Amino acid sequence: MDTDDLLKQVAFIKEIDKLKYIQRRTKLINSDRHENDAEHSWHLAMMALVLAGHSDKPVDMLKVVKMVLIHDLVEIDAGDTFIYDTVKNHTNTDEELLAAKRIFGMLPQAQAEDFIAVWEEFEEGITDEARFARAMDRFEPLLQNSSNNGGTWAEFDVKYEQVYAKKSAIKHGSAAIWAYAENLLNESVEKGILRKETPPDKTV
Amino acid sequence: MDTDDLLKQVAFIKEIDKLKYIQRRTKLINSDRHENDAEHSWHLAMMALVLAGHSDKPVDMLKVVKMVLIHDLVEIDAGDTFIYDTVKNHTNTDEELLAAKRIFGMLPQAQAEDFIAVWEEFEEGITDEARFARAMDRFEPLLQNSSNNGGTWAEFDVKYEQVYAKKSAIKHGSAAIWAYAENLLNESVEKGILRKETPPDKTV
Repeated sequence: MDTDDLLKQVAFIKEIDKLKYIQRRTKLINSDRHENDAEHSWHLAMMALVLAGHSDKPVDMLKVVKMVLIHDLVEIDAGDTFIYDTVKNHTNTDEELLAAKRIFGMLPQAQAEDFIAVWEEFEEGITDEARFARAMDRFEPLLQNSSNNGGTWAEFDVKYEQVYAKKSAIKHGSAAIWAYAENLLNESVEKGILRKETPPDKTV
Repeated sequence: MDTDDLLKQVAFIKEIDKLKYIQRRTKLINSDRHENDAEHSWHLAMMALVLAGHSDKPVDMLKVVKMVLIHDLVEIDAGDTFIYDTVKNHTNTDEELLAAKRIFGMLPQAQAEDFIAVWEEFEEGITDEARFARAMDRFEPLLQNSSNNGGTWAEFDVKYEQVYAKKSAIKHGSAAIWAYAENLLNESVEKGILRKETPPDKTV
């Protein structure tokens, strides 16, 4: 690596400071304070390290950690898309791809290509590493919302069925964590902090 | 891993959410907003990944990332100690060791021991991984303060000589980053945002 590489890397390091300003919909555990993307990414990395033993498949943990650390960087340009947004799909929008190219493109070329590939691997969600990383990304807000009287589920009137569908991604990474998550969802319904859709025959 | 382990791990994951409330003295790049420990830890992990090629020695990058992700967790109990504090020494206080035992002690025993060992290795700063991780920890506030008209240097009247002494830890991890850092310190003096100590003969 030469000095020119280092200058590019420092410019990138300064640029990604902006992730600390991207606010998520979810709030901290037992709190009214919104989480930002940098805090979220740190927490997912910690979860991946701590929960590694529950991955159904052996995974390259450095790659998993890298994925969760960088997975939201595109939101510096594209903003946070709420996972239950029905208009704008979160997955791999053109806007996010442009953002990836601009932000990672600040790095020396080989490194930029490597980071973009890791980000795309996470977005595609096919490899064992991506599945485990995505399981972490789905699990964290579940812990937050269930600690916050329903959190964003209550705030945006998101129903059990929608949450269940999104959270099912956890089972592609870890059967053990999915069993825990499923149980937590059922408990949330029992506590009345997550509601099931009203069956059609009752809406008449 | 069994269910009992998972319950302990989830309790730990919820507990460490508190790192997001621990405010540091330093502020974000070009900003008046204080950084918190979770954001700081995320940024160091990103820096370690991006700057890996500048480490003087080959390092186990997963261990480096683990070190920087967990290095400040003890501050949940012990609070943030300002690096230029002249009364309270930052390094390995009894308070921090107690905190490490309580917080990591929430995990299954083998995992708790592993995390404590990694945290101690970082604190001791002897291994190649600890040296590179500590270089990241010293480098980030330098980028922040130099972008913020002197930041905490100006706010707490910290002089060039004190900063230089603390930042020298960078050279134990990376000659290339140290060369950049030394240059940035000199530029900061030239710009008047970091002041040298007044020589004794001028104070008369």
